[in-house]
Amino acid sequence: MPNFVPTHRITHEATMLMLQRGIAKATELKALVSIAVVDASGQTLAFVRMDGARLFSEAATIKKAKTASSQGLATGYAKPEDVVSMQIRFDGHFTNVPGGFPIVVDGQVVGGIGAGGAKIEQDVEIAKAALAALD
Amino acid sequence: MPNFVPTHRITHEATMLMLQRGIAKATELKALVSIAVVDASGQTLAFVRMDGARLFSEAATIKKAKTASSQGLATGYAKPEDVVSMQIRFDGHFTNVPGGFPIVVDGQVVGGIGAGGAKIEQDVEIAKAALAALD
Amino acid sequence: MPNFVPTHRITHEATMLMLQRGIAKATELKALVSIAVVDASGQTLAFVRMDGARLFSEAATIKKAKTASSQGLATGYAKPEDVVSMQIRFDGHFTNVPGGFPIVVDGQVVGGIGAGGAKIEQDVEIAKAALAALD
Amino acid sequence: MPNFVPTHRITHEATMLMLQRGIAKATELKALVSIAVVDASGQTLAFVRMDGARLFSEAATIKKAKTASSQGLATGYAKPEDVVSMQIRFDGHFTNVPGGFPIVVDGQVVGGIGAGGAKIEQDVEIAKAALAALD
Repeated sequence: MPNFVPTHRITHEATMLMLQRGIAKATELKALVSIAVVDASGQTLAFVRMDGARLFSEAATIKKAKTASSQGLATGYAKPEDVVSMQIRFDGHFTNVPGGFPIVVDGQVVGGIGAGGAKIEQDVEIAKAALAALD
Repeated sequence: MPNFVPTHRITHEATMLMLQRGIAKATELKALVSIAVVDASGQTLAFVRMDGARLFSEAATIKKAKTASSQGLATGYAKPEDVVSMQIRFDGHFTNVPGGFPIVVDGQVVGGIGAGGAKIEQDVEIAKAALAALD
Repeated sequence: MPNFVPTHRITHEATMLMLQRGIAKATELKALVSIAVVDASGQTLAFVRMDGARLFSEAATIKKAKTASSQGLATGYAKPEDVVSMQIRFDGHFTNVPGGFPIVVDGQVVGGIGAGGAKIEQDVEIAKAALAALD
Repeated sequence: MPNFVPTHRITHEATMLMLQRGIAKATELKALVSIAVVDASGQTLAFVRMDGARLFSEAATIKKAKTASSQGLATGYAKPEDVVSMQIRFDGHFTNVPGGFPIVVDGQVVGGIGAGGAKIEQDVEIAKAALAALD
């Protein structure tokens, strides 16, 4: 059995581009958000809070990126009655608010992207625009 | 695009006056409260716990000021079923108890004021009296 | 043996007056400081950060008031070689920087006052002016 | 006496440009760093960790930006024998490692920029290049 398997890391060229595309989409939508990119271990790789975005959007957005990266799923999949229990179980890092997406390369999750601070459908659209920077 | 946008900071003359007006209103109502003023980034600028006010009112009141400053809204706007989830999502800083108000100058949130420790309608009245010191 | 002994609490009239006198002295000295008053249990009763005072002065000033209240001594009494060990031993609450004074009534420590963020001799003078509000 | 004084906020156009210029300088120097921009109250506005930069550089770099913003000084000004005591006194947020600079507009500190994770002289050069994006 091998000791190691090949995987991928996200470059800072890519994380910066994701922030830029997210900001561009938010500006188009006249929304003010935080945007975060984390790696497969949930560590923050890139973050921006747009001028005027809510202070609390930093924490909420990092949780979106971290949840998507950990679970390999877009945020928002849990049943409402399970959410608080899951938040506590995962040491406060879990969120069920849409706007977080896993970053997948060759079938492996290599990170997560999240946007937060505007209306949920705007957060989702902004996070998707940021993710699409990788195409 | 500009690198900076003009905004305002609250002076300590103003924060002290807010505490005084809040105390005066509380005294009139025979209520004992904590009163807190925070800046746009949630940092405490001025705080007082009235003699006899509950110990826990310090934490609860700072959360009111911080929530109002972050969200740009008077506290108490969330749906009851969302509150615990929001508290965890915002790392414990969020509160849904009325008695917190944003401080707005020229359409921009520059801070928040909160009062807590008495009956909710008293907290609200005291916080409003403190906020009115800025008029 | 009695179950209780009489003591005193500091009123909010007194804590607010201490903040005001401290601010007045700081203004006279053209200094920008944080000022904190804590009770005998180290809990914050009143606090103000003057507009333009250093962000870190909040933490440092509360430690001055708390140390003076706990130890019943003006801050700055420890030998330099002992300071870091004492800081860790007292869970980070201890400081050896002058500018903190115990508040004493009838021979009992009932709290502490601290000022911080300017030159040490200014911090001391401001804290003394605040304390003198109680005379 | 006024209730408010005019100041400035850093736009996200500016914080993103600072990250980009910092990355460009780091690439030129063949260095791998984290870069952080915080506001006047120490809140993170923008952050990037370059691919391959040390994990611990995130924490160290945010402390550089925060210290510069709080103290209004480039990091590295303290006497070596005072550093550990200051780190504890400022609740772990202080650093004395060069590579952090205050962001000043019209004579007022509106934030801080930090770079960390490479050789100190490289960190300094990268942070200066990022700061120069504002000229």
